[in-house]
Formats: sequence, structure tokens, C-alpha cells
Amino acid sequence: MKPALVVQKYGGSSVADPARIRAVARRVVAARRTGKQLVVVVSALGDTTDELVELAAEVSKHPPQREMDLLLSTGEQVSAALLAMAIRSLGVKAAAFTGAQVGIITDRAHTQARIQDVSAKRIHDALKRGCVVTVAGFQGMTPDQEITTLGRGGSDLTAVALASALKAKACEIYTDVEGVYTADPRIVPNARKLSAVSYDEMLELASLGAQVMQARSIEVAKKYGIKLHLRSSFSKRAGTVIGKEEKRMEQMVVSGVTLRKDEAKVTIQDVPDRPGVAAKIFKRIADSRVNVDMIVQNESKKGHTDVSFTVDRADLRKVMQVARRATQEVKGGKVTSDPGIAKLSVVGVGMRSHSGIAAKMFEALADESVNIGMISTSEIKISITIRREQGAQAVRAIHDAFGLGKVGAKVKAKGSKGRKR
Amino acid sequence: MKPALVVQKYGGSSVADPARIRAVARRVVAARRTGKQLVVVVSALGDTTDELVELAAEVSKHPPQREMDLLLSTGEQVSAALLAMAIRSLGVKAAAFTGAQVGIITDRAHTQARIQDVSAKRIHDALKRGCVVTVAGFQGMTPDQEITTLGRGGSDLTAVALASALKAKACEIYTDVEGVYTADPRIVPNARKLSAVSYDEMLELASLGAQVMQARSIEVAKKYGIKLHLRSSFSKRAGTVIGKEEKRMEQMVVSGVTLRKDEAKVTIQDVPDRPGVAAKIFKRIADSRVNVDMIVQNESKKGHTDVSFTVDRADLRKVMQVARRATQEVKGGKVTSDPGIAKLSVVGVGMRSHSGIAAKMFEALADESVNIGMISTSEIKISITIRREQGAQAVRAIHDAFGLGKVGAKVKAKGSKGRKR
Repeated sequence: MKPALVVQKYGGSSVADPARIRAVARRVVAARRTGKQLVVVVSALGDTTDELVELAAEVSKHPPQREMDLLLSTGEQVSAALLAMAIRSLGVKAAAFTGAQVGIITDRAHTQARIQDVSAKRIHDALKRGCVVTVAGFQGMTPDQEITTLGRGGSDLTAVALASALKAKACEIYTDVEGVYTADPRIVPNARKLSAVSYDEMLELASLGAQVMQARSIEVAKKYGIKLHLRSSFSKRAGTVIGKEEKRMEQMVVSGVTLRKDEAKVTIQDVPDRPGVAAKIFKRIADSRVNVDMIVQNESKKGHTDVSFTVDRADLRKVMQVARRATQEVKGGKVTSDPGIAKLSVVGVGMRSHSGIAAKMFEALADESVNIGMISTSEIKISITIRREQGAQAVRAIHDAFGLGKVGAKVKAKGSKGRKR
Repeated sequence: MKPALVVQKYGGSSVADPARIRAVARRVVAARRTGKQLVVVVSALGDTTDELVELAAEVSKHPPQREMDLLLSTGEQVSAALLAMAIRSLGVKAAAFTGAQVGIITDRAHTQARIQDVSAKRIHDALKRGCVVTVAGFQGMTPDQEITTLGRGGSDLTAVALASALKAKACEIYTDVEGVYTADPRIVPNARKLSAVSYDEMLELASLGAQVMQARSIEVAKKYGIKLHLRSSFSKRAGTVIGKEEKRMEQMVVSGVTLRKDEAKVTIQDVPDRPGVAAKIFKRIADSRVNVDMIVQNESKKGHTDVSFTVDRADLRKVMQVARRATQEVKGGKVTSDPGIAKLSVVGVGMRSHSGIAAKMFEALADESVNIGMISTSEIKISITIRREQGAQAVRAIHDAFGLGKVGAKVKAKGSKGRKR
């Protein structure tokens, strides 16, 4: 029987210094000794990437992106080499490779390249020789041999892409948290670790501030059906498995409550209700490189409507200038802003088939006298804006209302059996 | 007319921090603005290589060499990227490359690979686009795409190899000294900077402790006829040109006096005078990875001879053990050592055609009551061992005797005109 192949990925905090690298090596070796074949993707040591960015800033105000990639990719190369050395010193064969060496081929979009192909030939060769393979994450190479990096969360992406190319049995993402929780444990002390979530739930949770994995890697894992096991490199406990939606997941109507503070709201009043007007406004904002989060627009009255959207509070000043100019162009009305909001979201695949989730959520907020600003929903998510100072209180109230806490606090979905998908 | 192509190389102290990298960038840009095409090879920033070696030591007692190369090569990659950024920020196009990217192909001898081929295709392409090209020194790639490093002085080697492959007009080696001197200025205050030396002289000077360039790079430069200009990155003054032996060089009989402290002498007495005996002894020592410097053996008497050699004082204990075992094997006599010696050498192509150099040297030493231990000579060099504490005094005496100091202190060779070579 062919031995099981597992891809592991260790983030920067897991390989922050030589002592932690040795700890990771011990974990890898323990897994190897159970007979598994292992491919281990690593991020740069601790703050290395920040230090390299700082160096670049000291020699250039606008460092060219091609050279930035050449610079930044060294961080992961160092980690991969050191981890292979640490594994070897424990008596297990190991070989380190750069992203380019293992054939991670990307497009030419320096600093945020997209993976186009993975050959992984050299990984197969090294595995055949009995080696644990360590791979520098976050990087690849264009077909004409330019070194590229994959942008934020790039090492996760490397791990997922390799797991897919190698048809790995598992892809384990090691980080400094124990998994995905029903809410931020700092806000909700009895928040519970989820043993499993679906890709879609994780996507909503990631983009809503769960900050554990970048949305891009989850999308790729979903596309190729790679089951992810998100867990802590500092403990032996099982973490959260991210996979296809399964029956057992449907027992939970709501899987988590997230809060994103530091949002700001912009409202453009009396926008002419004609095709192309909204497009023009949001094109201008996108050109200014500000990320827009929620967008809400209501039915128009008398040929005009109000459009509201949220952005990072840090971007508010910039986006207001852009929004005012854009609004003048389209002959819209006043542009107002509110820097004091937070976004609260409830996520769960179960809510798709269950009415009353919104009602229960709004009721819980009313009981706490929390006023709701904007509302926006997707199939598996309800997001609202509230006053920032009421954020924590609101999360706790909703977490309780849905019975998400520890100790027999599960909410079973009724009538979910036999539902066809 | 095709613009002149110049290869420059900057050592670690020249690119020790962002401020110095910016200074190098200004120098490069100034040269570029005179119309030259430039290829700039860089070492790792200041102590980076030592720091990486230290990291490796913290995760492994015996780091595998292949991974060591993957680790160490990042240092130069960082420098090349940063320098290109700094040049670009001064408004001049620049592109950075790793050794692998510019096609520096080596053998598989990790940590001290030998260059086998240089394609430099990508350098030509970048130069055509009007770029200054920066290249990570000290590294290459095997034909099967393993990253290798070239060992000590490897960045000099990269520069010389590229100068040869690109048919560069000049190869400028920037360092933290102003050039090659007639003696160490710390010992001999009126030591003079040589404007030119031959490859052979430089080879002797380099291996004798001048420490400016590694012998290997000079050998390659000699082989391919690359003229080197050794100069300081901290001043605009011309340095020392290392090139083919020319007439004007012959005016100087002696070009320099070097001193190597921290030597130790080992003597093996009564070695049987048979073929293969010396080979056996020195094979054993080589296997123990101790470098032997001078070896002296005199005529044998009654079928036995004494062999003496010098090593770094730090290696004395180790080499004594090895030498004792080896001597037993060949049935030699006593093995003795002297840890308190220094080696003094006089170098000059001129001495080849002039007798009396040794006599003048020994006379100068006798005047200072310096006793001579071993004597060893080559065509252009006379080396002797003396007591370490008399080293500085001896260098000054010889430097004076040959009139090497500044201000009209040249010694002209008589009768050297018209000599055929």
C-alpha cells in the first residue's frame, strides 16, 4: 500500500526562532515515524517579512515589485532550509526547495501572482528517496524564470496547491490558534471551537475578520476539494476541519458570530437611479485602491436612491474625497459619513433552510437596546452595522441567543433531515 | 560604437546597511551616466552570512551542505534586490538577478562549487533594455537546478566569471581598502599603494595574508586575462590594477612584504627517505581538513630526513595528533612543534631576473638580529619563518632595505631592459 501523503503548513509564528523550528521539526519527525510521507510548507521566520519590507523602504520610496519579490522570497527560503536542517539533525532525511524549484508556476503579477501550474516533479523524486520535503511558501516562478510572490496568505495557498497537485490525503494548516471558534474568545469567553465547518462558512468567517486563513486559499481548497485541518502548532489537540458541507454540519444552524471593528460608513444621497451610475462611483473608489466591504442600496424613490457602503476606518478620509468627486460627476446629492460603526455577522450553512434566523438575531439585539444600521444578507450570512461601542455586547447576546457556547449549548436544526442539495 | 561594459563588485562592508547601499547606488548611477553599461555583483549585507550560519548552528550540529547553500544564497539575493531598488529610485533602470537566473552553472560541490559555465543571456537582454544589472554574488546553480555557493571569496569569482563571459572592458572590485600595499600600513607607516601588480604577484600576496582577494578569483582572472581594478568603495581614488606582467612592472624588483602571524611549525624527524612516505603523511593531514602552508624538507642523511611544515596556530593541537599517528605508521621519529612563529614573505616578479634579493633580505634581518628559521622560495617569492615577536620589526627592516616606502623610494631594477620573456 502506498503510504499516506500529508501536506503540512507552518505559519510565521510557528517558526519564529530556532527553538520553534526545532519544535516543528520534532512534530514533523513524529508524523514521519508513523509512516506518512510529508511535504512541509513554511512561512518566513516571525517578523522577517516586515524587516525586509522595512529595508526596501530605506533604499527606495517606491520599490519596484519585481525586485520586491526577489527580496521577500528569501524569507521563506531561509525557513525551508532551516527546517530541513532541523529535521535532518533528528535523524530523518529531509530536502528543502524553493517554490521555483518545485515547479510552482505563476503568472507575471509580481507581489500578488496567481498560481497557474504545479509540476511537483522534484517533490515526487525526493519523497521516493525517503525524504521529508520542506518547501518555501508564498512564492513561485513565471514561465520565464522570474521569481514571484503570492501576496497575503500566500503560504496557505502554496500548501493547498501542493496538496492538490500531489493528491495529498490531508492538508494541515498549523497556526497560533486552535481552530475556528463560534466567536472571538476574547469577546465571548464561552466561545466554542468548531470541529468542522464548510468551505462556504469558512469563506464568510475569513472575510469577516476571523483572520485565520485568507479567503483565496479557501477558495482554491474548495475548488479542488482539498480538506483542510486548521490547528495549533503549540498543542496536540485537533483543530477545525474545513471541508465539503456534510450532513452533520447541518445540525448547526449558525456556526459563528464575527465582529469587525474599525469600519466606517459612507452614504451617498440622491443618486440618480440609472444603469451605470453605481458602477461609475465604485469604479472610482476601486481605482483609489480602497477596499469596499458592505454595499447597501434600497429601492429608489422618485428616480433617486441612497447608496451606503463600509470601508476600513483608516481609508475614510481618502474615500470621502473620491466619493465626493464621483458623486458630483453623476450629479448625486450629499455625501455623509459615520466613522463609529462595527460590522457584526452571523454565519452558518444551516440558515439557508431555516427562516427566523434574522428575527432571532434582531430580537436578541433589541433586548440589549442595540440599534441596527445597515443590513445585508447572503445565503449563509447576515451582516449588520451597529455602533462600535456596542459591538462586544451585541456579539455576546447573539452568541447566547443561538446557544453557541460550550456545554450542551447546541442548537439542533429541526426538520433538516432528508433535505436534498 | 558599442558602449563600454564594466563589471563592478561590492563586498559586504560596502553594502553593510541601507545608507551604504544608497551610496553604492549613487556611485553606480554616476558611472552609468557616463554612458557605460554596468553589471554589479554584490555580497551579502555586512554580517548577514555569519548570522545565517549562526541560525543554522542553532537548529543543527552538522547542517547538510545542500540546505546550507539554499540558506546562505539568500544573503546575496537580498543585496542584489535592494541595490536594484536603490538605483531605480535614483531614476536609472535596474534589474536584479540571482546567480541561478543569470545562468552561472556550477558543479555539485555544495558550499564550494566551481563555476563550469556562464550563459549570461538574461544579462544581455536586460542591458539591451537599458538596465543596470545587479547580480547576487557567491552563488550558482547545478545543471539540475540545485542552488550552490562558491565558497570564500565567491562574489569576487562571480564578478570575474561574468566579466569574462560578457567580455567586459573592466572588472572593478570594490572593498574597504584602497588597494594593494607594499606592506601592511599598520606595521609599516610609510607603506605605499601599488598602482599595478601582476596576477602572479597578487596570487602570492593574497595567499600570504594580504586578504584583499581570494587566490581563486585571481587565478580565474589570470586564466581569462581579466584585468582587475581593486579599489575602495569609500573613496574616488584609483586603486591597484591587477593584470598581465608588463614592462613597467619590472622596474620594481620587489613589490611587497607580507607577514603572516599566528603560524605554528611542526617538524617530523627521521622520516624514512622513500617514495610515498611524505605523501602518506600529508594525505592524513589533508583528510583532517587542516591547511598546510609552507613545507620544507632538506637533503636526507643516511636514508632519513626531517620534514617541517607550518599550519594555522589554531590547528596545531589537531595536526599534532594526526602527524604523530601518521609518523608511527611510516616509522618516523620524533614529532615536535613550535607555536611561536610568523611567516614573512617578499614578493615581486622582478626578483626572477635579479640575484641578490635573498642576500639583501637576510642581511637586513641580520642587522636587526632577527634569526631565520625555515626558508622556502618560489620564482617570485622568498618566504622565511621568524620568531613571532620580531615580525613587525623584520617587515619594517626589509621594507626599508628594498626602498619600498613613499617619496622617491623606488628601487629600479638595473639591466632589465630588453629582457625577453
